[in-house]
Amino acid sequence: MFDPVEKLKEYVRHASVSADPQFKQGMLGAQDFIAGLLKEIGFAVEVVPTALHAVVVAKRGDNPKWPHVIIYGHYDVQPADPLEKWDTPPYEATVKGERIYGRGTADNKGPLMVHVAAVARLLEKNPDLPLRITFVVEGEEEIGSKNFKTFLKANKEKLRGDFVYFSDTGIPSPEQMVITVGLRGMMAFEIEFTGPKMDLHSGMNGGVLMNPLQALAELCASLHTADGRVNIPGFYDKVVEPEAWEREQLKGLGLSEKEYADFLGIKEFHTPPGYTPFEAIRFLPTLEFNGFSGGYQGEGTKTVIPSKAKVKITCRLVANQTPDNVKEAVFKTIRERCPKGVTLEIKEQHHALPYVVIPPDRSNTPKDQSPALANCFRAVDKAATEVFGKPPLYLREGGSVGLIADLKEVLGLDAVMLGLFLPEDNLHAPNESFHLGVMKRGIETSERVLAALAGK
Amino acid sequence: MFDPVEKLKEYVRHASVSADPQFKQGMLGAQDFIAGLLKEIGFAVEVVPTALHAVVVAKRGDNPKWPHVIIYGHYDVQPADPLEKWDTPPYEATVKGERIYGRGTADNKGPLMVHVAAVARLLEKNPDLPLRITFVVEGEEEIGSKNFKTFLKANKEKLRGDFVYFSDTGIPSPEQMVITVGLRGMMAFEIEFTGPKMDLHSGMNGGVLMNPLQALAELCASLHTADGRVNIPGFYDKVVEPEAWEREQLKGLGLSEKEYADFLGIKEFHTPPGYTPFEAIRFLPTLEFNGFSGGYQGEGTKTVIPSKAKVKITCRLVANQTPDNVKEAVFKTIRERCPKGVTLEIKEQHHALPYVVIPPDRSNTPKDQSPALANCFRAVDKAATEVFGKPPLYLREGGSVGLIADLKEVLGLDAVMLGLFLPEDNLHAPNESFHLGVMKRGIETSERVLAALAGK
Repeated sequence: MFDPVEKLKEYVRHASVSADPQFKQGMLGAQDFIAGLLKEIGFAVEVVPTALHAVVVAKRGDNPKWPHVIIYGHYDVQPADPLEKWDTPPYEATVKGERIYGRGTADNKGPLMVHVAAVARLLEKNPDLPLRITFVVEGEEEIGSKNFKTFLKANKEKLRGDFVYFSDTGIPSPEQMVITVGLRGMMAFEIEFTGPKMDLHSGMNGGVLMNPLQALAELCASLHTADGRVNIPGFYDKVVEPEAWEREQLKGLGLSEKEYADFLGIKEFHTPPGYTPFEAIRFLPTLEFNGFSGGYQGEGTKTVIPSKAKVKITCRLVANQTPDNVKEAVFKTIRERCPKGVTLEIKEQHHALPYVVIPPDRSNTPKDQSPALANCFRAVDKAATEVFGKPPLYLREGGSVGLIADLKEVLGLDAVMLGLFLPEDNLHAPNESFHLGVMKRGIETSERVLAALAGK
Repeated sequence: MFDPVEKLKEYVRHASVSADPQFKQGMLGAQDFIAGLLKEIGFAVEVVPTALHAVVVAKRGDNPKWPHVIIYGHYDVQPADPLEKWDTPPYEATVKGERIYGRGTADNKGPLMVHVAAVARLLEKNPDLPLRITFVVEGEEEIGSKNFKTFLKANKEKLRGDFVYFSDTGIPSPEQMVITVGLRGMMAFEIEFTGPKMDLHSGMNGGVLMNPLQALAELCASLHTADGRVNIPGFYDKVVEPEAWEREQLKGLGLSEKEYADFLGIKEFHTPPGYTPFEAIRFLPTLEFNGFSGGYQGEGTKTVIPSKAKVKITCRLVANQTPDNVKEAVFKTIRERCPKGVTLEIKEQHHALPYVVIPPDRSNTPKDQSPALANCFRAVDKAATEVFGKPPLYLREGGSVGLIADLKEVLGLDAVMLGLFLPEDNLHAPNESFHLGVMKRGIETSERVLAALAGK
């Protein structure tokens, strides 16, 4: 009998930090482990090299008449720093109470293990299951899936499935399953302001020139209206309003605005008019400042007017915005508003397309949807309702997972995303953990989903 | 014969960095050196301990009928870092061309040596010179003269002079002597903004709360008007307009606005209406941002909404402002303008009073001035005119030297400040140097001044 907790412990032992070349051994170890595990449960495994970390591709079933599900996962994890904040060793998964602690337990080794276990159990009972399954497990998700799109383009033939099915999104509580139906896109950049050619003494030269820090403040202050909207002409042009059913779903979150504010530690929200905070993080684009720097930042005083100042900004995008549309509007406005007396340089960074999928039987304006995709949504809804005792919620998330848009763009495949991690799982932080009850119910749900896809 | 260049080389050898406890030996060495040198030329020397670095007090002449000049200097220097940017060893003074290079050559070991040499030469010729001279050489100027005011209060009796005479200010060129007649004051503080209780993911939670960086930008952007004035009610209330003769003096700088802009590396000035840049840095108060920090500042992108953001600010003050007046107006406005959704904390830092002295025969509204002070101004004017071939300029400086205001406040003494360093001397920077021509002419000038004070 496949023991998912023991397998997860083995998997976590491989310190697969994709961002840091020192963890090359851990990356190879995790890759070997997941390749070996999939082979063990009957898959034909191929390790496909990329420019950096290889992708593990594993297949079972070759009857072209059978439905074909692509299950996505990633074997890389975030760095464990700061190590001193961990209560248990990050790479020795430790069960305490109803949780298993360790780096990657929730992101994404545990959730992937849920589907591997579901497949293993199902195939044990039905060795001839009429379902094609292809696992695609990449090693660069935590560094922006840099080579994944290239991999997809080069391996289109192998990946001609009906849809993508996976778990790398969240749920609000262990009792509430969520099908994630949208993710925000991203357009990241930084602006560097240059004033005088060198740092100046603020006594000798203060009060006669535009301080780059002041230019930064003036420009940044101009980018939002007092009511919290982004103050850039054209910014909202392509934004599609959510449908009534989407707003309705949010009631199922079971979280009051007061509880959310308390969780964040704020006294009041600053949300654009017409949207609750729960709606705003899912349905509205943003322009957020992620970092300011310039001048002296140490203890005490240094009377300097810095030559340069810098701001890092990310815009989150919603359907139907694209990074290119938004970039054009944002950069134009920024260039127009650059205060006199300084120059600015904009450096483009990471882009990701937003993603939305409309589950069947929901929208008033249904789009063409493949029967296989609709079938999967219905299978998940039924299985989750049975296992969790209540229907799943269909929610968008505020974060960005660019590879989902890549899968859609390159393979034409939509995604059925089964949420599995909780807000308190500490993803990307010390003491990351995965809820064992969610794991158990996740496996049961996924086993039923896969059985249903196979017509069982 | 006293050789000021050789003596300066010996003096520079003592690495007297007051800011760094590792340089204790250098501090004691410089203290001993200057004490020994003054003893050598006939002074009774006392080393007066303070809470940190001692003050060297040296006296000659005890006839109470003689005029009494207090000569101020400091034996401490700035750290020499970054060491790799020095072309010569910072603590081995090296003559190249018409300059002597080394840490402290210009600030303040060289300028103090000018007056020591002048005194030595004069006393060699006139051993019975009817002039009381007291050198007061402190060791904490580069760290804000922290204990100097306490020292002054405790040693008032020893320091009952007619005025203070010294060189720790600048000149525009080796051919143009300057008498510094004013310094700006200072009111330094920082503001910390706090939003959510922890750093947040800008995808999961972006667009619903006031980002502390945005609050910082909005508040800072509100603190100046578009025309470059400080936008705080009451900020300019106490400011006294300069007199016509002061504006007139600036023409003698021999620097065009274009040349000044080129030196700073800017295309245009941003100066409040009614003031040239040369006037604004001397006659107007400022509010300058010295540092912004908050969020992610490294390479690439980190999608964080930081819990905290911080800005460091210094206000430069002019007569008759005080740090307390200005603080009240500034802090009140900042508290009133704090954007909703964040809290702010203001941390007070360094204060310094502004200082202005009006030389005799200049102002239309002359103040009571001691005949001894007027006598010294006239002596400096005559000597500088003879030695430099043209009259000195009477200029205020934009910087702050709090101890001048302390001398005025505690001892009731005004200061006659003979400028000696040049813009290209690299004070506080690598490759600090002192111009040997200025040194020579400074000694000649100072010798004539002291002789005139003694009635010779």
